[in-house]
Amino acid sequence: MGEILSANSIEGVVRKDVPERVISRLPIYLQTVETIAATGQSTVSSETLAARSGVSSSILRKDLSQLGRSGRRGVGYSCEDLASTLRTFLGLDRARTIAIIGAGRLGSALADYAGFKRRGLSLTAIFDTDEAKIGTVIGTLPVSDLNELATWPESIDLVVMAVPATAAPAAAHIAAEAGVRGILNFAPTVLDAPDSVRVHQVDLASELQVLAYYSALESAPLNPGFEEHRN
Amino acid sequence: MGEILSANSIEGVVRKDVPERVISRLPIYLQTVETIAATGQSTVSSETLAARSGVSSSILRKDLSQLGRSGRRGVGYSCEDLASTLRTFLGLDRARTIAIIGAGRLGSALADYAGFKRRGLSLTAIFDTDEAKIGTVIGTLPVSDLNELATWPESIDLVVMAVPATAAPAAAHIAAEAGVRGILNFAPTVLDAPDSVRVHQVDLASELQVLAYYSALESAPLNPGFEEHRN
Repeated sequence: MGEILSANSIEGVVRKDVPERVISRLPIYLQTVETIAATGQSTVSSETLAARSGVSSSILRKDLSQLGRSGRRGVGYSCEDLASTLRTFLGLDRARTIAIIGAGRLGSALADYAGFKRRGLSLTAIFDTDEAKIGTVIGTLPVSDLNELATWPESIDLVVMAVPATAAPAAAHIAAEAGVRGILNFAPTVLDAPDSVRVHQVDLASELQVLAYYSALESAPLNPGFEEHRN
Repeated sequence: MGEILSANSIEGVVRKDVPERVISRLPIYLQTVETIAATGQSTVSSETLAARSGVSSSILRKDLSQLGRSGRRGVGYSCEDLASTLRTFLGLDRARTIAIIGAGRLGSALADYAGFKRRGLSLTAIFDTDEAKIGTVIGTLPVSDLNELATWPESIDLVVMAVPATAAPAAAHIAAEAGVRGILNFAPTVLDAPDSVRVHQVDLASELQVLAYYSALESAPLNPGFEEHRN
């Protein structure tokens, strides 16, 4: 991981000083600028980049200035430079290896997800504990026995957890033992993972309950901009 | 929606003054306290409630004090009272109606999601535009033609968008026209919805890129608590 660690500080910006609400927007800026660059455009204005990323242009400019990047008046940002800064900053200069745990409908659907590769992520394995699923093929990957994760020949950076709530704690334990550093948890349960593993929770019912709360508000602005969505 | 609007202020708390990072944790507290209550416990300490919700107890106490709720020293919170306060505050005193747009693998998997009903959400319809899917049954619901959404007999509060990125903008337009107030968007694209609709984005690749960023950090604490996860 030397090439990653050496990039902890780029151009004087110490990565861990950048707040998570800013970090969480960078993948979206990256996706937007790559989409724009793919159409042959070489520069993009902060207004266009902001609108297509769903944020206000003042938030966009503040976020990018934290990475030491500012647009030139009347010209905007160079697409290529900006994409490269964002990729380096996020540590996507090497592909991150992903495994999915859970080969049910959700796991299979997530395996199908378009654009892993295009976005610096490499899906390398799918695990399950169900004998009936082990050995079947999803996309191009065979489903492997979860017990093989501990001795898996490739290093796995991140896991997408797509198992029932009751199976999630044991699966998280196996992933942590195997050296996995991050878990994106779709299981509807709070995972108590060791400190070496960062867990992000995607809880469908909670997300919908938060949406329900806002949809019931009489007079609050409904689309206050992306910053407040993530705050 | 009278019963919802009248609850915009409960016990002196104006709902829209509570920050979204607090709102986003309330469904998790609700789920935890309901799980604890189901075991027959009548009170719960802030430490236990916090640990099982994945936050620090100081964050938990601060969040609940914003709703006018504080635990009693040596006793903690009454499970029943706290659950009732949280449900009322979130506007879950009536079930919110949900539709899923997209009857592919992801939409089908999300329809299977355990616990919609238990959490105040009622899945009432699944829509698609594909003739081959319309009329098939997922769980107990038949897949309906998306064009029927505009004249759907039941009011639909929220939509889960599980269609490809290219199909998402048109589907969001149809949902907005039909009076849907919130969209949970799984399509890997930023949705440009009208102001009447609140959109929350669940972007698998972006979530993984954020996790990758943190997993590459040398010395940052990896599990700084839930507040910083959502910040």
